[in-house]
Amino acid sequence: MSRIVTLTTDFGTGSDYVAELKGRLLHARSPVTLVDIAHDLPPHDIRAAARLVGQACFAFPPDTLHLVVVDPGVGTNRRLVWARLGDQEFLCPDNGVLSYALRRTPLVKARTLHVAATASATFHGRDVLAPAAVQLLDGDHPDALGSRLASPISIEWPEPRETEAGLEGEVIHIDTFGNLVTNLPAALWPRVEAAGGVVVGPLRVTTLVRTYGDAAPGTVVALVGSHGFVEAAVVEGHAADRLAAHVGMAVGIEPSPNKP
Amino acid sequence: MSRIVTLTTDFGTGSDYVAELKGRLLHARSPVTLVDIAHDLPPHDIRAAARLVGQACFAFPPDTLHLVVVDPGVGTNRRLVWARLGDQEFLCPDNGVLSYALRRTPLVKARTLHVAATASATFHGRDVLAPAAVQLLDGDHPDALGSRLASPISIEWPEPRETEAGLEGEVIHIDTFGNLVTNLPAALWPRVEAAGGVVVGPLRVTTLVRTYGDAAPGTVVALVGSHGFVEAAVVEGHAADRLAAHVGMAVGIEPSPNKP
Amino acid sequence: MSRIVTLTTDFGTGSDYVAELKGRLLHARSPVTLVDIAHDLPPHDIRAAARLVGQACFAFPPDTLHLVVVDPGVGTNRRLVWARLGDQEFLCPDNGVLSYALRRTPLVKARTLHVAATASATFHGRDVLAPAAVQLLDGDHPDALGSRLASPISIEWPEPRETEAGLEGEVIHIDTFGNLVTNLPAALWPRVEAAGGVVVGPLRVTTLVRTYGDAAPGTVVALVGSHGFVEAAVVEGHAADRLAAHVGMAVGIEPSPNKP
Repeated sequence: MSRIVTLTTDFGTGSDYVAELKGRLLHARSPVTLVDIAHDLPPHDIRAAARLVGQACFAFPPDTLHLVVVDPGVGTNRRLVWARLGDQEFLCPDNGVLSYALRRTPLVKARTLHVAATASATFHGRDVLAPAAVQLLDGDHPDALGSRLASPISIEWPEPRETEAGLEGEVIHIDTFGNLVTNLPAALWPRVEAAGGVVVGPLRVTTLVRTYGDAAPGTVVALVGSHGFVEAAVVEGHAADRLAAHVGMAVGIEPSPNKP
Repeated sequence: MSRIVTLTTDFGTGSDYVAELKGRLLHARSPVTLVDIAHDLPPHDIRAAARLVGQACFAFPPDTLHLVVVDPGVGTNRRLVWARLGDQEFLCPDNGVLSYALRRTPLVKARTLHVAATASATFHGRDVLAPAAVQLLDGDHPDALGSRLASPISIEWPEPRETEAGLEGEVIHIDTFGNLVTNLPAALWPRVEAAGGVVVGPLRVTTLVRTYGDAAPGTVVALVGSHGFVEAAVVEGHAADRLAAHVGMAVGIEPSPNKP
Repeated sequence: MSRIVTLTTDFGTGSDYVAELKGRLLHARSPVTLVDIAHDLPPHDIRAAARLVGQACFAFPPDTLHLVVVDPGVGTNRRLVWARLGDQEFLCPDNGVLSYALRRTPLVKARTLHVAATASATFHGRDVLAPAAVQLLDGDHPDALGSRLASPISIEWPEPRETEAGLEGEVIHIDTFGNLVTNLPAALWPRVEAAGGVVVGPLRVTTLVRTYGDAAPGTVVALVGSHGFVEAAVVEGHAADRLAAHVGMAVGIEPSPNKP
């Protein structure tokens, strides 16, 4: 059976960097199924890479290998790691790109990769991660890749906080449709309903729906999105434009009127 | 042999939605060859999705499975369907995305998909279509997917019309090069030649050629394009910019001067 | 084992042209691994296609087949070719898209492709190159594709030149990060060091580093990049914007102060 390898980078779709990475990966002796997750991440945006990979990776079959190459520190003394989280494997710089996946699933084990003296100083994706991937695809044990690492670096992740004014969170992602994904988990939806709405930036959104099509076009609605978080959307419209939203914009659930 | 599954969505290249879809599809027990057709369709543009899929799908080998997830009505009471047209199979919302394919090839049969109670209300691509695809890839008979459907929804498709001023059609697609693809089929080319040209929006195009390079750079030309329709192009230029064109812009063949 | 076929075009990611090409290629009787190199090359930009393919192709395993369809002359009397360079194979119009690969690796042999009378005049990628690829994938000998061709067309490639003012070169590529890749090969790096810097357009870059992270954010640096050429970059910034750079912009190494 073919082993699945996903690729997440900020190299740009259609760049020679991505092609060189794939060319090297395809040197594995057994069949490989390459899946592009994204190559147009904002350059050097470790947080965006971490969210994307952490969201997408657990949809893949067991033993999928995820290469994440958002690596502003390439060639410096930052480490490169192999890590297993749940039933998924990762090869990436140790710069926080696993933070979101680590929140969702515990680390099984990790290794610091050897960097060969022949590796370039500027493209460790091609010169270190791809060869490590080929080693694994060819059947090497992960322990052969380097020395034991207790835990990969995690960057701080925005968490909803209880305040006197209610629960405060933020927008953590804006999707292609302009929908605003917050960090308020679906479990808080009953509290949104009790409060009669959710505050998203400048607006109190009071039309609470099951899905995008459940209100008239143009209505600003809130719902539980497929990521498992409270979302704000505009029916057949673009919430991010409408609310001049950005990642990090404040959201909140005000105290329920029933609980003065 | 690996089964081919194509993906056409408005999710955005590099979105977690596409990655989750692929992750689920790769849970099939037999090998799958995933082919991205497009993920940057204009959001909710059923007509654009229908044209693209209808144009591209019949180039694929028999029994290719096409997932089309342009689904503004997700979670409402719109149906989801499996359909076989000629030797190609489709899984999609029943909202008209098969309209153009249905014009080209007759329906063999169709099924309305069961929607499991556990499916999210906002991402049926991941929660209904992908599992249905995996069922088929794993060898289930399509009849197991749901109840019989007489015919999927077709949206009205612009057809050339005879008028007193000649034959009227419209631009149905603008390609990457800015070429204007009309809905005038290649069979009408002799009539274009007899009329000495074709009217495209504000312009009467009288340089009729076999291919793009057959006139001086900058010339506005008309030809039969690879889609099998009359096209307007600018040699080494961008016809859509030059003619301020848009999908839906009127085109026409005036009565032949030989037939007053 | 699956045969690898790469695709490099100016058709646009998500275009029906790319999908039709893939659909045809997948008609091969044996498994094919399709790899997209790029589809968003600037329309008709043979030089950009040549650089990208020449840079990326040698990272692939032996006997990879590269389809390059940047073809402004489609349907005119320009030839189509199959060529083997080193251990890589190519199918493309004979318009110079192999120029950069030919500089890196010698031609083994080449063939001019037969064009079937049934081919369209406007899409030889689909109607000539893809069928030729399928023939090869199905085991035909390349000699069956057409008559012997002594050598594919090469376009002139910018070379560094010695002048009285030092060595003059130019920017040959700007990557996603805004890094400026020059045509000064890594072998010239000692000369850059001796001269105390490299001139890039309006600026003399004197911070010479091993990798991007080796200077303070915002610093303009020069280094040997992963392509094997001298590069200019801005640490955590965008050199192309900062220096208003463009492909073709002059770069140079001034005579060393030690050699008056």
